[in-house]
Amino acid sequence: MEYAMSATASYEPTERTVPTRSRDRASYDRATVHAILDEGYVCHLGFVRDGAPVVLPTLYGRVGDTLYLHGSTGSRPLRMAGGAEEPGLPVCVTVTHVDGLVLARSAFHHSMNYRSVVVHGTARQVTDETERRTALDALVDHVVPGRSADSRPADAKELAATAVIKLDLAEVSAKARTGGPNDDAADLELPYWAGVVPVRRTYGGVVPSADLAPGIEPPAYLGALR
Amino acid sequence: MEYAMSATASYEPTERTVPTRSRDRASYDRATVHAILDEGYVCHLGFVRDGAPVVLPTLYGRVGDTLYLHGSTGSRPLRMAGGAEEPGLPVCVTVTHVDGLVLARSAFHHSMNYRSVVVHGTARQVTDETERRTALDALVDHVVPGRSADSRPADAKELAATAVIKLDLAEVSAKARTGGPNDDAADLELPYWAGVVPVRRTYGGVVPSADLAPGIEPPAYLGALR
Repeated sequence: MEYAMSATASYEPTERTVPTRSRDRASYDRATVHAILDEGYVCHLGFVRDGAPVVLPTLYGRVGDTLYLHGSTGSRPLRMAGGAEEPGLPVCVTVTHVDGLVLARSAFHHSMNYRSVVVHGTARQVTDETERRTALDALVDHVVPGRSADSRPADAKELAATAVIKLDLAEVSAKARTGGPNDDAADLELPYWAGVVPVRRTYGGVVPSADLAPGIEPPAYLGALR
Repeated sequence: MEYAMSATASYEPTERTVPTRSRDRASYDRATVHAILDEGYVCHLGFVRDGAPVVLPTLYGRVGDTLYLHGSTGSRPLRMAGGAEEPGLPVCVTVTHVDGLVLARSAFHHSMNYRSVVVHGTARQVTDETERRTALDALVDHVVPGRSADSRPADAKELAATAVIKLDLAEVSAKARTGGPNDDAADLELPYWAGVVPVRRTYGGVVPSADLAPGIEPPAYLGALR
């Protein structure tokens, strides 16, 4: 009897996903990686242009083990990713959540609690229309879950103006720091406060568009944003 | 009569700091750039390794028109930046603040309110001891203003274990989006809510270290974090 191959529980570490230091903070666990990615919507996309690095903030969405990014068909990295048959654009995509400021007695042991994911790979244009629609829905729903079904879908002209690129989640790692400061034993009696200041992303009260038609209330799914 | 040269009000745009699109969102105003940098403390550092891009989150501090980054002497980008006399490491440093989710009637016009700064340049090791101490204080104070004076300064061994690199703010631009959704006129009567959900970074109640000596209260400057 044969079973469908299911995704393995972990990504395979590679030479460039094993950090040179703090290896105990690295993880290749698929669920951990997905959870970090799904909590965010802005990534930092790195690529090489004329031999020099470029890092740009951009939105992303995830579907299974594929990361989707989009932009104008005129934007630089999306043009550089080429067509579906071309070699694609080597990229590094990084997503970071800051969870706390770690204050130690010593300046040296000050740190940050965070969770981050780094993805290495080759970004390629998505040309299939169905996949492009799926990707764009995923991008909208990554920011506000449920929103893509509650807005006007892209028409043919808008679709033509939008470039979508994709990146396989294959060479990927997560890194995290948690907990309090790691002061040296000799410093514990120093008269400086030590501990953690939690950092969170929060949402303020919604601001309706000035030209919103009367009687349209904020949708319930906005209440689920935390 | 001669006056000391003061910093100009704006950075000079270059071919790579002028965006291919949304040029009206770009700014080279020095005060704008500094304000965005000073509101953050985590940047995304991009560099090229074996021809491929790498993007890592890391802390930074600013002193005038110099950005300082630090790390273990064993960390990859800091080793690659070489010594003071060496050519240095081409980098791109990007800082991004998300200010709001922009929900339009059309999926296409969904957007993000944000402010970001992108710095291109060559990172070099800081070897002068006085400048290294200034840089490390700036890094700590960037996260929690006032903290460097209220902790134990680095000793010789800690200083030796810390690499500091610097990057001139010269080829730099800011980009920002503000305001509500830009829906097409034909979409204004659609029955979808439209507006902005503000996003903020907030701080939770402080968590004292489990081994904190009794009687040490959280310092007043923590109250200034917003």
